[in-house]
Amino acid sequence: MGSVIVTAGDPLGVGPEVLVKAIKRLGLPVTVIGSIRSLKKACESCGLDMDFTPVDEPTPLRDSVPVIDIDDFGVEGSGPTPEGGLHSYLCIRKASELILGGKAEALVTGPVSKEAVNMAGIKFTGHTELLAELAGGRKTKMMLFLDELRVSHVTTHVALKDVPRLLKEEEIILTVELTSSFLGKLGEPGKIGVSSLNPHAGEGGLFGDEEIRIIRPAIEKLIDRGYEVEGPIPADTIFLRAMRGEFKAVVAMYHDQGHIPIKLLGFNRAVNVTLGLPYVRTSVDHGTAYDIAGKCLADEGSMVNAIKLAFRLLGC
Amino acid sequence: MGSVIVTAGDPLGVGPEVLVKAIKRLGLPVTVIGSIRSLKKACESCGLDMDFTPVDEPTPLRDSVPVIDIDDFGVEGSGPTPEGGLHSYLCIRKASELILGGKAEALVTGPVSKEAVNMAGIKFTGHTELLAELAGGRKTKMMLFLDELRVSHVTTHVALKDVPRLLKEEEIILTVELTSSFLGKLGEPGKIGVSSLNPHAGEGGLFGDEEIRIIRPAIEKLIDRGYEVEGPIPADTIFLRAMRGEFKAVVAMYHDQGHIPIKLLGFNRAVNVTLGLPYVRTSVDHGTAYDIAGKCLADEGSMVNAIKLAFRLLGC
Repeated sequence: MGSVIVTAGDPLGVGPEVLVKAIKRLGLPVTVIGSIRSLKKACESCGLDMDFTPVDEPTPLRDSVPVIDIDDFGVEGSGPTPEGGLHSYLCIRKASELILGGKAEALVTGPVSKEAVNMAGIKFTGHTELLAELAGGRKTKMMLFLDELRVSHVTTHVALKDVPRLLKEEEIILTVELTSSFLGKLGEPGKIGVSSLNPHAGEGGLFGDEEIRIIRPAIEKLIDRGYEVEGPIPADTIFLRAMRGEFKAVVAMYHDQGHIPIKLLGFNRAVNVTLGLPYVRTSVDHGTAYDIAGKCLADEGSMVNAIKLAFRLLGC
Repeated sequence: MGSVIVTAGDPLGVGPEVLVKAIKRLGLPVTVIGSIRSLKKACESCGLDMDFTPVDEPTPLRDSVPVIDIDDFGVEGSGPTPEGGLHSYLCIRKASELILGGKAEALVTGPVSKEAVNMAGIKFTGHTELLAELAGGRKTKMMLFLDELRVSHVTTHVALKDVPRLLKEEEIILTVELTSSFLGKLGEPGKIGVSSLNPHAGEGGLFGDEEIRIIRPAIEKLIDRGYEVEGPIPADTIFLRAMRGEFKAVVAMYHDQGHIPIKLLGFNRAVNVTLGLPYVRTSVDHGTAYDIAGKCLADEGSMVNAIKLAFRLLGC
């Protein structure tokens, strides 16, 4: 069985508690990267009895959870703190080092706070950005995954007004290629639906011509290269068509286009997958939720699914 | 009971068949504006036995459907035709005349084809535009209605790249006001959620500032005027929050933002409501579907719900 490592995320967020609950529920052999102190605290607040063993690298253990124990600098209080941010950052770096060094094959990440990491004096624009940089500057794309609907995004965290300008043929092609490769790993190759940018797919250029100028040419090139792909399809019908089995995955043009259907269908169930890294990386689909942390209120659904999907992508 | 008139839409589309099926199913006293010939043809293809009586104005009848019989010029064939387009257009004009003349209180419209009406030599940009013009140039907003989710739109059939430019404070205010008035008529006053334009509501101006410059000021003015309204709320969570009961309706900034969740949840069930006309107007949420017309394959769900909602808005 492939080796999966999981970061617990910010110790003051819900990461440690969704992780211990997920491990308890799944019983899958993951190695945690975090602080044993925060994991124990999470077990306490959830009334769980679990054993943790400090290890130096991913190690399968029986009846105990192996933890690469990273200093959490006695982080205290609540909300974003420099200590919590620094710890989060060190865990990500350690995870990247292990996986790039061949010590693990898949990485699952818990929620961290951009604000907290920046409070620690580290310039940090995001989890995915850091992992991509550490892996040698990879181009990545974000997919949101549910069993019944998988959506990857050509653009993500940009202003809506910038989306039309950022929509390039090669970005669409890359997103489809990475999505297709993902479906291969998943063991579910099949047709990919490509969404349109404008309402009614622009109605023949009546409102917007990006379908004609950019999306359609990209799709034609992909078809020439042998990809099974269809579009541009109006965004208000493509997701339903995918749910009905017409498409194994959908390529959305911008953040909310893909996030609206996924969050509506699968809040607390969706997994965030990073396409384009040289290893499998899945992540929870939620933030640190500092406001409810430490009370064992957070739903572990997304963490459970993120871990399950990581194993599945390794062929386990 | 208020008087409801229903146009059958293009005789060569699915309008007549979804209408006869809906009338049979509902047994509500509507007066149809269309051609008896096409209604009889629809009954035939659906194996329905119904009686139609020509009338001059809305008239409640027992055991027969009152029809204001409009010439369909012996329309034949399939797809968009000038005859079908002209008939569609005349029905809309007749409906508008009756309702503005006080002969009816609510209008339900079947699907017409812009292309067919234009083939008849009539400049026609849409159903709603024509009704608004005939009513003296009203400003209207489109709402999509499901029992569990109601979404009105600040902008609709425009290119995505034009949305940020068209997003004006006064347009957001108007949309909320009309939505609030609709909820009053529906007998369900309550809080309205206003969506954001950018991912994560712009994350404090990090990607897009329309939330700060336009949406928030509009909401503040609305609150000052006594409206129960909250936002801007990220578009990928607002619909779920509405479904959970937090909002009686959602105001979306652009077409696909509102259409994606509604079509995903309620394909064939949603009703299109025009807000801002001096009367109640509901409509089916689908087009003429020429390709499946005449076979009684079309689902009458949207027409059933459009008629039911019209009666409900009249307080019936």
